[in-house]
Amino acid sequence: MIRPLAGLRVVEVSSFVAAPTAGLTMRQLGAEVIRIDPVGGAADTSRWPLSDEGRSLYWAGLNRGKLSVELDLTSPEGQAAIVDLVCAPGDGGGILVSNLFGKSWLSDQALRARRSDLIHVQVLGRSDGAPAVDYVVNAASGLPFATGPEQLAEPVNHVLPAWDLLCGMYAATAVLAALHRRREHGAGSHVSVSLEDVATATLSNLGMLAEAHQTGIARPRVGNAVYGSFGADFALADGGTVMVAAITDRQWRELLDVTGRADAVAAVESAVKADFADEGDRFRHREVLVTLMQPWFAERTSEQVAAALDATHILWSPFRRLTDLADDVAQGRSPVAHVRDEPGLGANVVTTGPVRLRGENDPETAPAPSLGADTAAVLGTATTSGGAG
Amino acid sequence: MIRPLAGLRVVEVSSFVAAPTAGLTMRQLGAEVIRIDPVGGAADTSRWPLSDEGRSLYWAGLNRGKLSVELDLTSPEGQAAIVDLVCAPGDGGGILVSNLFGKSWLSDQALRARRSDLIHVQVLGRSDGAPAVDYVVNAASGLPFATGPEQLAEPVNHVLPAWDLLCGMYAATAVLAALHRRREHGAGSHVSVSLEDVATATLSNLGMLAEAHQTGIARPRVGNAVYGSFGADFALADGGTVMVAAITDRQWRELLDVTGRADAVAAVESAVKADFADEGDRFRHREVLVTLMQPWFAERTSEQVAAALDATHILWSPFRRLTDLADDVAQGRSPVAHVRDEPGLGANVVTTGPVRLRGENDPETAPAPSLGADTAAVLGTATTSGGAG
Repeated sequence: MIRPLAGLRVVEVSSFVAAPTAGLTMRQLGAEVIRIDPVGGAADTSRWPLSDEGRSLYWAGLNRGKLSVELDLTSPEGQAAIVDLVCAPGDGGGILVSNLFGKSWLSDQALRARRSDLIHVQVLGRSDGAPAVDYVVNAASGLPFATGPEQLAEPVNHVLPAWDLLCGMYAATAVLAALHRRREHGAGSHVSVSLEDVATATLSNLGMLAEAHQTGIARPRVGNAVYGSFGADFALADGGTVMVAAITDRQWRELLDVTGRADAVAAVESAVKADFADEGDRFRHREVLVTLMQPWFAERTSEQVAAALDATHILWSPFRRLTDLADDVAQGRSPVAHVRDEPGLGANVVTTGPVRLRGENDPETAPAPSLGADTAAVLGTATTSGGAG
Repeated sequence: MIRPLAGLRVVEVSSFVAAPTAGLTMRQLGAEVIRIDPVGGAADTSRWPLSDEGRSLYWAGLNRGKLSVELDLTSPEGQAAIVDLVCAPGDGGGILVSNLFGKSWLSDQALRARRSDLIHVQVLGRSDGAPAVDYVVNAASGLPFATGPEQLAEPVNHVLPAWDLLCGMYAATAVLAALHRRREHGAGSHVSVSLEDVATATLSNLGMLAEAHQTGIARPRVGNAVYGSFGADFALADGGTVMVAAITDRQWRELLDVTGRADAVAAVESAVKADFADEGDRFRHREVLVTLMQPWFAERTSEQVAAALDATHILWSPFRRLTDLADDVAQGRSPVAHVRDEPGLGANVVTTGPVRLRGENDPETAPAPSLGADTAAVLGTATTSGGAG
């Protein structure tokens, strides 16, 4: 673990993916993170996937290295203990990330009356505070009708909870930005960020909403093609499939050379009056270009294709399985993850996070806590009357 | 724009999505961000989607509010001007986010010799610094075989460049964490984060790699079902499709009530010896549960379903099109985006970013710069000899 945030203490009243990701990210950068749960745990405590012993690998991953405080959140004593913890003095404290909404005892007003320079980041589903999950926000975004093979009729949700994860990263960024402001000016911050707003802002940043607004047409499905450039999947002789992208001029020329299609493509270019130096034209005419190149791939095995493409700057990868990536980790091929046997979890795949600080990485990473394991230690005996720890 | 990062100056030598997202995020939080481009722009300058006038809506979105410096990056003078800019004194400066790799003139060693407390974040494709794009990293991750309808044979890449976006957010977080450390201890930081490592760490955080490692089985496709809980798409009488998720006990009971399926589901529960209070059992038996509920949806219009579900806590949304979300924005229904006419871009959808600072939001947002517009102003006349501005 690297420790640029050593000395910070973040309290997280959280569940599911977004808010725990915010805390986890800061934990992976060295902060102390205290996750608060109701007695028995929040609704994510036993979320799939599960280990053989029935423990949630998901919960264990998203709460790794945190301290766990288990309290009766419906009791005045439990609520007071959390407020005390959040509002305790200290430059590194006074930081709350929460996805609870509408609880008067945890309202910004109540908390800020106790500590005016509080950094309070509320993670929401909808803009208005209503709950939402990634799949529902994604359905509303329009992406599921832009995802998948062209001939498909039904919507396809992404499997990665991308809006949750991005929302969590925005929440972590907001905490650190607010911390900068507090150090500069002494001011606290009350911030909110929702999955819904993250989706809208992201699709705006990428120009996708401007395109939809200006054309009146929702971007259609293009399978695995890379919109506006050249990218395609190709089937190989041995049943494998590869993703190939040529987004620069050099990559494009190399792809023509390695597949031996330079002459054929030049003939097409002339016939259809296209300019394949323009990546837009490569996208417009992708069907004929892919058709011309496909035989080269269909005649070769994965090994042969790898040897040929690895000798170029072309961007490519075989389409693999999650088990292939897990094998990479198990065999020590990832700098950021490894396998470790952990009680109740079995052979766990654990990570220090993707941020690598040169010269200071430490492969050690603490496991997720047992629920409530740190209640007494964190709160102290005087304030644990509402606790279950 | 909100301004917790006012006073920071970030230099970005960047292209495509990840590194520009890091700078954009800090810009949206008030930092000054200077994007450096080679003469004529980087390879992303004319990336689709394009406006009617041929300008990139994508570039305009990802570089909004930044200053643009256009320089001959192959000339000693251009290179020296960038190094001067990155290493200029000042508490808020000395911050570089770059996706250039392997350039000796921009090496950490060369830069750190000029400013020892430099914050240098390198955004990479692969762990080892080799270039990669989102679609290729995603192919290697295994997710494309876990995405889409169960009967599909081919891999399905996500359309959202999620690894790029997450990598950019990790880069922004890393800058701010390193800034905290510099203020605490005076130390600089050399950080790297790659799309590949972000994918590995994320799938580890979510327990997906542990599951694959322990079972030896890559999670299969489950269509739009929510893995390990109850979530499904339902077709409606008017041709609409909705995504419905019941991830808490209350949502599940309400879904049985609103669809009138409590008795039928209880009979199935008894017959198959399941416990539908356990969300895992709801997932295991999702086919029969969906089959039982589908007629209720098939008999109702979008409007009727909305009225019924909105009266409950069930999480749901119609599957919409990108044009629907763009319409929301155009009609003023998003707190974080709006439509603005901008030169060369037309009716642009613009955003202040998803982070909302209570009491301090400002809907004004500066457009993307013209390429090189700020070269002279940023570098000063003495150092622009290598520039094209």
